Amino acid sequence: MARDDLWSFFHPSSVAVIGASDSAGKLGHEILKNLIEGGFPGALYPINPKAEKILGLTCFKNVKDIPDQVDMAVVIIPARMVPQAVRDCGEKGVKGAVIVTGGFSEAGAEGAKLQEELVRVASNYDIRLVGPNCQGVNNPHHPMCASWPLLTHKGRVAVISQSGTVGAAMMDWFSVEELGVSSFVSLGNRADIDEVDLIEYFEGDPNTKVIAVYIEGIKDPQRFRDVLSTLSKPLVVLKSGRTPGGRVAAESHTKSLAGADAIYASLFRRHGVCRAETIEEFFDFAKGFAYLKPPSGNRILYITTSGGSAILATDAAEQEGLSVSALPEELAGQLEGVIPPHAIRSNPLDLTGDANAKMFQEVIQRARPYYDTLGIIFGDPILDASEVVTPEANELVIFLGGAEVERAERMKMHQRGIPVFPTPERGVKALAQLIPPKSKARKAQTTFPVASGRVQLGLYEGLQFLESKGFDCIISSFADSPGKAVHLAHRMGFPVSLKVDSPDILHKSDCGGVRLNILSALELRSAYTQMMERVRSHHPQARIPGVVVSAMASPGLELILGMNRDPQFGPVIIFGLGGVTVEILRDVSMRLLPLTRDDALEMIDEIKGAPLLKGFRGRRPVDQEALVDGLLKIARIAEEHEDIVEIDLNPVLAYAEGMVVVDSRILKA
Amino acid sequence: MARDDLWSFFHPSSVAVIGASDSAGKLGHEILKNLIEGGFPGALYPINPKAEKILGLTCFKNVKDIPDQVDMAVVIIPARMVPQAVRDCGEKGVKGAVIVTGGFSEAGAEGAKLQEELVRVASNYDIRLVGPNCQGVNNPHHPMCASWPLLTHKGRVAVISQSGTVGAAMMDWFSVEELGVSSFVSLGNRADIDEVDLIEYFEGDPNTKVIAVYIEGIKDPQRFRDVLSTLSKPLVVLKSGRTPGGRVAAESHTKSLAGADAIYASLFRRHGVCRAETIEEFFDFAKGFAYLKPPSGNRILYITTSGGSAILATDAAEQEGLSVSALPEELAGQLEGVIPPHAIRSNPLDLTGDANAKMFQEVIQRARPYYDTLGIIFGDPILDASEVVTPEANELVIFLGGAEVERAERMKMHQRGIPVFPTPERGVKALAQLIPPKSKARKAQTTFPVASGRVQLGLYEGLQFLESKGFDCIISSFADSPGKAVHLAHRMGFPVSLKVDSPDILHKSDCGGVRLNILSALELRSAYTQMMERVRSHHPQARIPGVVVSAMASPGLELILGMNRDPQFGPVIIFGLGGVTVEILRDVSMRLLPLTRDDALEMIDEIKGAPLLKGFRGRRPVDQEALVDGLLKIARIAEEHEDIVEIDLNPVLAYAEGMVVVDSRILKA
Repeated sequence: MARDDLWSFFHPSSVAVIGASDSAGKLGHEILKNLIEGGFPGALYPINPKAEKILGLTCFKNVKDIPDQVDMAVVIIPARMVPQAVRDCGEKGVKGAVIVTGGFSEAGAEGAKLQEELVRVASNYDIRLVGPNCQGVNNPHHPMCASWPLLTHKGRVAVISQSGTVGAAMMDWFSVEELGVSSFVSLGNRADIDEVDLIEYFEGDPNTKVIAVYIEGIKDPQRFRDVLSTLSKPLVVLKSGRTPGGRVAAESHTKSLAGADAIYASLFRRHGVCRAETIEEFFDFAKGFAYLKPPSGNRILYITTSGGSAILATDAAEQEGLSVSALPEELAGQLEGVIPPHAIRSNPLDLTGDANAKMFQEVIQRARPYYDTLGIIFGDPILDASEVVTPEANELVIFLGGAEVERAERMKMHQRGIPVFPTPERGVKALAQLIPPKSKARKAQTTFPVASGRVQLGLYEGLQFLESKGFDCIISSFADSPGKAVHLAHRMGFPVSLKVDSPDILHKSDCGGVRLNILSALELRSAYTQMMERVRSHHPQARIPGVVVSAMASPGLELILGMNRDPQFGPVIIFGLGGVTVEILRDVSMRLLPLTRDDALEMIDEIKGAPLLKGFRGRRPVDQEALVDGLLKIARIAEEHEDIVEIDLNPVLAYAEGMVVVDSRILKA
Repeated sequence: MARDDLWSFFHPSSVAVIGASDSAGKLGHEILKNLIEGGFPGALYPINPKAEKILGLTCFKNVKDIPDQVDMAVVIIPARMVPQAVRDCGEKGVKGAVIVTGGFSEAGAEGAKLQEELVRVASNYDIRLVGPNCQGVNNPHHPMCASWPLLTHKGRVAVISQSGTVGAAMMDWFSVEELGVSSFVSLGNRADIDEVDLIEYFEGDPNTKVIAVYIEGIKDPQRFRDVLSTLSKPLVVLKSGRTPGGRVAAESHTKSLAGADAIYASLFRRHGVCRAETIEEFFDFAKGFAYLKPPSGNRILYITTSGGSAILATDAAEQEGLSVSALPEELAGQLEGVIPPHAIRSNPLDLTGDANAKMFQEVIQRARPYYDTLGIIFGDPILDASEVVTPEANELVIFLGGAEVERAERMKMHQRGIPVFPTPERGVKALAQLIPPKSKARKAQTTFPVASGRVQLGLYEGLQFLESKGFDCIISSFADSPGKAVHLAHRMGFPVSLKVDSPDILHKSDCGGVRLNILSALELRSAYTQMMERVRSHHPQARIPGVVVSAMASPGLELILGMNRDPQFGPVIIFGLGGVTVEILRDVSMRLLPLTRDDALEMIDEIKGAPLLKGFRGRRPVDQEALVDGLLKIARIAEEHEDIVEIDLNPVLAYAEGMVVVDSRILKA
């Protein structure tokens, strides 16, 4: 999809500045000055009917007066004069015009009409337009800075922006970091050239490795989808209007419809577009794609002198689906004599305060074959830090701190094409964008560690214990044969449920140990037999004294009430939505002891699903008092029974009046 | 909770540097140098048995040889000699010692024993200890920099850090930004003084407005909770070990247990502790609390010259529970003549390229009474930008770009105590920390806008339409009287469900228009009558032709399949978990047309709840083919029926074999 028709905007041999001015500060002055000072290698023609010379260059009254060919024009004259200027350009044979002037469609109905006229004129003469109402075009590789501020660093990222200032901020950061950009285009009102045209152009531009686009809405969804489906270069998109309020602001700003954000999200996901959520991510992600080598997997080893930063980096990695996998023994052996004896052989690998550049370098060399990425975190200023890392070598460099020494080393690395990130989290997140979703681990969830050496109460024993503490449990009895089960079922009336009762099985339903809604004696007998077979085949070693037969609870809101004894904090009371769905969409609140009534009420209010408890969609609210009471009872058990390390009442069914425990798990130390 | 016992660490009249060195680069040299160059106002005593003078100061062989009183000692000698040095300090009457030396509990069993000895000696002589294995103490207000690097800016944030480098990075950023800190303490191994002691101390320190703590785990949960419950100053905490991997790394680093992160989270939430998730947030949030005035509500007005940045800021605000509320007409009137005529009177308020400092100032003055916070976003360099804002005036200043001109203006504002944030998202997030949760709006969710002028198909008509398109719908019939309903129910067999069928009611269950599990003719008759009464009382104007009687579907996994026609993108196919729970815990995937089989499969895989479909916890997997088929059918309807703008099949019950539509909503343009 080579777009030769846009070539003249980035590689003109000659540029006319229509509206060039002699007054410093005016855009017509600044742009001409930037073209000159940026080192534009071709001919520059200021157009100004009143001046003889501007910035040392001979002025022309009209673009048509220029004796030589003009490839491109930058237009900074009042809006109403722009169509005529473009007509003149057309007659002169100019191929492209960058219309900086504002006052078109963004400024109301009259401006919109003027813009229509402008487009008509341009199309009559086959002139392509950037803008109007834009901040120009800059190609540091030509070089040609028909924009402001003057930025001349040559880089690898093409920045396309619907907002002049957002684009300029990106440019600015890339410039301060001495990385530069491959080109910058300010889209403005997109009367002609839009984001799709430019993505197509930069796909074919050899200086561009990554395309970074800020948009508020796309102009043509169909063309946008088409270009995404064939694009080979990484595309990083910052799209504002993510929220309803932002969308309204975006539509007002661009005077055009924006589709629902969720659709953009799915479109981006489908086509592998990297979506930045903030302007800082926009910068970081573009930088990552431009200068990091995509790793072939998700395993990362941190090498650092800052234990603290490496822990933060580990958190970030797990959240982003990277794996901070254990140090292979073989590698640990190879580090003998290289790292200090008191440095712990683990990942993160903390080289301790004794580290120097040489040690970093040797560790990096030895570790490289074992990991997909090495995360080098410099916490303290390491002399010659910039010498230990290599461009394009699957290294992620993080250099904390903003003082002069860090800045100097950072700049040295940037000059060598090695991107440096200022915090572990920003670096890791940028790296994670380069790893395909399939190579990533499922994002880490906060869970309680399973302590070993715990003993589970039998189900029936547990329910009896809970009854003795004042809980309403579903009517249940213990049976150790199909016959007894049937007998009990008749007493409670069908339907009933059947659950295996074994101290050795933690997840009954995983092994076929739960059957609900059994309707008859016949069904119960066969369920009993089948259950024993299935459970035994899953757990051949488990002790299985029998089963619990229970009545079926009426439908109600499924909740979890529980307690977990943390080794450091002691008992933690847990409340949340229950059942199997919510095991995945985890929604719980927690409190430490002592637990007051107010705490319990807060816990109930705190979960995301709280509206469900208050009577959502015409349902009756559930009995909050009963829930508060249940939580306080669990707290009391935790205080009185120090040997109980875990209580898991799940599900508890909550009703408009009361609640009932349907299943439970109780673990002792 | 004044902690006078720690006074000597921050305000000593005299400091001994035990292990002072003449070799530049050695810590014993750097710390003494920093004390001198930092302008320490009291007496400084280098201790070194071999030197006469260091950095121009007379050396002593032992702290006991010093003729005058010594308040505090900094110790930088080999670990094995530290206990004796502390003993000497004890005999001299020194009150506090900062042990920089490493090689204690962090370095194995032998070091741990040495640390025990150290603590015993210190306790015998009533000496308090910071460290060992730490980066010292810095109080720029005294001034006293017994740390490195030398940082002298006086600020408002007390930084307490379990990691030297994380703390130093914070110090560094505060220094580069010319904001400074009130104090810095590196905790090291926390052999004696810990985070709780220091939080208590800084609670009483008049220079400290905000306490910022980096921890990997807390030493004493009980005392930590106690201090939180009485603390009056804002506390910002960065706690690493959020993920299982990070926790392992933290426990290995600190050689101590860390509680489950979820407990920290609930503890922090309960006590109003501001938790930062990244080191950058740690900095931003501390800066916000130190320099922003807490707003009394959540309404913000953006005043800017950068439309794009303001949209990003609006997104950030809505995500953080702030309200970018409409510009009051009264205020719009007051802006007449102040802002350019082409500037749109809305929030964000874009002053356009014609803005200058004076315009900003006048707008700010007029707008102040109408909003809780004014978000001033400088996109372009505005001359004298720093003059238009006022310290402590409920203004949030964002200044994009990193070039010299922005930096100069930023520093001017920082010198006046006005914090400047580098991106809209970072500024808004920092501001949001100051607003109590109750003043915040519920976080914005991405939803489809409800288009006006839509017509709803009757329920029965909709189900028939779906049947005609090949969907399996639950057996249903239409009835316009209780008698007919009973007749139909007998034909399908009880239990049945009853649903109101009205083109004018969008949410049937909200108004009592749904009854499930009706078991008998009698119950059905009374349900019919009640339903009509309740629905009529909610919707007196609604047309209600009758009801739909349906069989009860067997329990299955509740899903939603749907379509929504977006004004820009066209039809969007939707798949997700269904039912009322998931309406709150929204979990859906989306695709645009054309929809292929692979797209449909991807959609099914993409939702968070995907494991539920694959047979979670012993359940049988659901029939994916049926779901794919259903999605493709919806796509076909969307293509063939351009007048249909929304289809909502919710719930669809999915089984191991097949699926059935239980309820539906179809809207036409």
